[in-house]
Amino acid sequence: MTEALEDVQSRPDYRGVPLRKAGISQLRYPMVVWDRDQQRQHTIGTFRLTVELPREYKGTHMSRFITALEHHRGEVSLETVPDLVDELRNRLDAERAHVHVAFPYFIRRAAPVTGQESSLALQCWFDGSADEREAEFTLGVEVPVMTLCPCSRAISARGAHCQRSRARMKIRFRELVWIEELAAIAEASASCGIWPLLKREDEKWVTERSYDNPVFVEDLARNIALRLKAEPRITWFEVEAENEESIHDHNAYAFVGSDDLPEE
Amino acid sequence: MTEALEDVQSRPDYRGVPLRKAGISQLRYPMVVWDRDQQRQHTIGTFRLTVELPREYKGTHMSRFITALEHHRGEVSLETVPDLVDELRNRLDAERAHVHVAFPYFIRRAAPVTGQESSLALQCWFDGSADEREAEFTLGVEVPVMTLCPCSRAISARGAHCQRSRARMKIRFRELVWIEELAAIAEASASCGIWPLLKREDEKWVTERSYDNPVFVEDLARNIALRLKAEPRITWFEVEAENEESIHDHNAYAFVGSDDLPEE
Amino acid sequence: MTEALEDVQSRPDYRGVPLRKAGISQLRYPMVVWDRDQQRQHTIGTFRLTVELPREYKGTHMSRFITALEHHRGEVSLETVPDLVDELRNRLDAERAHVHVAFPYFIRRAAPVTGQESSLALQCWFDGSADEREAEFTLGVEVPVMTLCPCSRAISARGAHCQRSRARMKIRFRELVWIEELAAIAEASASCGIWPLLKREDEKWVTERSYDNPVFVEDLARNIALRLKAEPRITWFEVEAENEESIHDHNAYAFVGSDDLPEE
Amino acid sequence: MTEALEDVQSRPDYRGVPLRKAGISQLRYPMVVWDRDQQRQHTIGTFRLTVELPREYKGTHMSRFITALEHHRGEVSLETVPDLVDELRNRLDAERAHVHVAFPYFIRRAAPVTGQESSLALQCWFDGSADEREAEFTLGVEVPVMTLCPCSRAISARGAHCQRSRARMKIRFRELVWIEELAAIAEASASCGIWPLLKREDEKWVTERSYDNPVFVEDLARNIALRLKAEPRITWFEVEAENEESIHDHNAYAFVGSDDLPEE
Repeated sequence: MTEALEDVQSRPDYRGVPLRKAGISQLRYPMVVWDRDQQRQHTIGTFRLTVELPREYKGTHMSRFITALEHHRGEVSLETVPDLVDELRNRLDAERAHVHVAFPYFIRRAAPVTGQESSLALQCWFDGSADEREAEFTLGVEVPVMTLCPCSRAISARGAHCQRSRARMKIRFRELVWIEELAAIAEASASCGIWPLLKREDEKWVTERSYDNPVFVEDLARNIALRLKAEPRITWFEVEAENEESIHDHNAYAFVGSDDLPEE
Repeated sequence: MTEALEDVQSRPDYRGVPLRKAGISQLRYPMVVWDRDQQRQHTIGTFRLTVELPREYKGTHMSRFITALEHHRGEVSLETVPDLVDELRNRLDAERAHVHVAFPYFIRRAAPVTGQESSLALQCWFDGSADEREAEFTLGVEVPVMTLCPCSRAISARGAHCQRSRARMKIRFRELVWIEELAAIAEASASCGIWPLLKREDEKWVTERSYDNPVFVEDLARNIALRLKAEPRITWFEVEAENEESIHDHNAYAFVGSDDLPEE
Repeated sequence: MTEALEDVQSRPDYRGVPLRKAGISQLRYPMVVWDRDQQRQHTIGTFRLTVELPREYKGTHMSRFITALEHHRGEVSLETVPDLVDELRNRLDAERAHVHVAFPYFIRRAAPVTGQESSLALQCWFDGSADEREAEFTLGVEVPVMTLCPCSRAISARGAHCQRSRARMKIRFRELVWIEELAAIAEASASCGIWPLLKREDEKWVTERSYDNPVFVEDLARNIALRLKAEPRITWFEVEAENEESIHDHNAYAFVGSDDLPEE
Repeated sequence: MTEALEDVQSRPDYRGVPLRKAGISQLRYPMVVWDRDQQRQHTIGTFRLTVELPREYKGTHMSRFITALEHHRGEVSLETVPDLVDELRNRLDAERAHVHVAFPYFIRRAAPVTGQESSLALQCWFDGSADEREAEFTLGVEVPVMTLCPCSRAISARGAHCQRSRARMKIRFRELVWIEELAAIAEASASCGIWPLLKREDEKWVTERSYDNPVFVEDLARNIALRLKAEPRITWFEVEAENEESIHDHNAYAFVGSDDLPEE
């Protein structure tokens, strides 16, 4: 019966417009990520899977993207994304393929004084693309942290406003860097980390530590940039910091990339 | 030509299932709201417009909802929503109609010390429904405010964590209550209000005032409830308070309705 | 050391305002749901956990909500939500507790002709509340389906517009109803189901089946309502249908609840 | 009094990290756009306003961004964004400034047969940056359109699946191009345009026209690219097309930029 159905996508195209990307987007699919302790973490990815479409072809075969994902049984991690990209290239007979997937990833957090444990969600994403000669892979992580305003502290007789902040890092590396390592870098660069579960002793510690360690959104971005730059495994990065200001209904924002830094 | 096209929606239906609501949703449309100073504020509404559909009819005529809105030329306010509801009832030949519209509404804010002015967006909504005998109208307003944690302040040697909070109020009234009045109630019930534009003198004032005036999310909800209860124009209300905790990546939450309050 | 830190939340409160709900919201946490085949599905919940707060107390103890969730090790399912509600009541010493959790849930779908398998995400939620005497539990499921417009088909010389639709069902039951059963009811009530993976033979089948089976948004809601009403295990329901109209940028909408249906 | 408060942001910084962007984000503010008929359209912008921060300074002065916006009285359009960028550079004493603003913009649509009018929201954005020597300005528009699947039509005995699609265009130009012109290009490149208000005669026309004019997501992107390339005022562009597939719960996606096109 298949023979009877015309393959419209494979018709020739005469418009002379190659497409950088053709495929599927906004696909939610179960996935498995390996964490630092070599355990499998089940999570849910939102995928964009595309291939380069030469000018000669009318369309791509959208169902094959799902087949490739099924074939991988949801194993999508720092190690397996290159395989998935290759599989897309082969199944779709394409020069170049591209995988972008965003997913929540949970890390265990022990409260700073009582040590009580809980799970904190980080928003992460992998982005990989490859052709026959070269491949490029980017890891992104967003870490929620706490910042306390140095200006507010300096000018006020008591207290200082603080807020939830987001530290977003995108990195490329020559040797594996764990999501957990990036979370630690963000935390060390902020006024304080945050935890889902804090008892009173912990809350006292967090309050005092953030008061003792004020950072602007600019400081958060710079502190992270310096730590990423000092890490020899990392070859390129971008940092975005966003403070959900408690005294405004808008955010404070800072951005820096490895390309902005002066040569040593 | 119209005669040639069958009116499928008007076909009889034999399943015996009346629909409480049939209509359109997620429609973005320009609208105009009257503010307290009797000036017209242009904004953008997200509408759900529905009518009751008796069991005898297969469908409603979706295009007439847009016609009704066009006929109103976007004048959708506390005074005109009843007219819009009536117009839907007439145009769609329905017993009962329902209008729900959410929209941003800007209020001018003068900074507390320098008096410098800026515009703050409040998320608002109108909800109106009516049949021949009775009409019910609800106004909703969400106000961003600041809360500072009483526990953190009490147990810490210095500082206290604070955050952006949302105070949501839904009210029904016998006499008009302005959005601006609800904003003032939320601000008075929090640790401090917030402003888009604050100079250093203002920031000092906000920091110290919030430190001097700590409130839990439970306090925010209760303070608002007491003020709404004391207002004789208001006949019913619900209050929801949500703190975007700076020490967590989740929120603290409280809810109270006028029905929960003990009789005097 | 704990003794030294005042328990501010336990201070007495004299305002006389009991809170219907006090707790935490927007908490993302890993969870495990049991599916029909008695297998554990790992997913990610967004939780709102609250207790009733009597007028005498200033605040609730927010960290205990996380402790309760940790204690349950993420086992949150139709069977275990009652336990979680009870645990919140005990740990927080409250009359009444409330759990609301939304989560994606994947079902396996075999394409209608080729039988090729893939995973489809359904958005689900559990809502449970209980006091000493009674408990109420609600299950919600949103199923993406396809609808083809009867009016467009009847009046057009060729073709008929169709679109992605959302069927949302909330039910209470006296005996367990599976998410998979609700998905089947939504699919049977629409023009056609949808699948992540469709080969050409499948696409032909879906196109023709939907053309042969046109339903308005009103029909989708009514068809589902009749099926839910006919199910003796279900004691109460609400149905919401929303068509993401392909000829508009807004949706068509219908709502019906078991309370709207005439007595037999 | 101002003198007494230290200007912490102006403290020197010794870390040697210049920031590409420092400023505010997620600010909602009223704005006015000029439309093609030279009338002022009131709308609501979501702004990110930033400046370059040299390595020598600790922070930027966040309140001045709001002051600049207030000074412009919300006049933010193709003509005035360069002024706003310049004003940011001056007020914040910066080499380079950047304005990004996203906003809904309504165009009037006359139904194709009956001519009945209604308003359709387009999501738009302006992006402008400048230093002393050069300025770059980008206009973005997202237009909702309708696509009907050529494969589904070719292989099916009757009907063909169709859906709502999004055509996103980003352009740079040497001479003004109106949002309305980009909307017309998207519509001409799709199976059919869409309208908020369609009577039965219009719905028949839309159904038949889309059936007669099937386009894949790849076709939509290519058709738009060819039209943008043929327009001598446009110097650079990117096109993204996304079909909200009615037979799936994910989207089909295509991307092409002017840089991908072969030289003439």
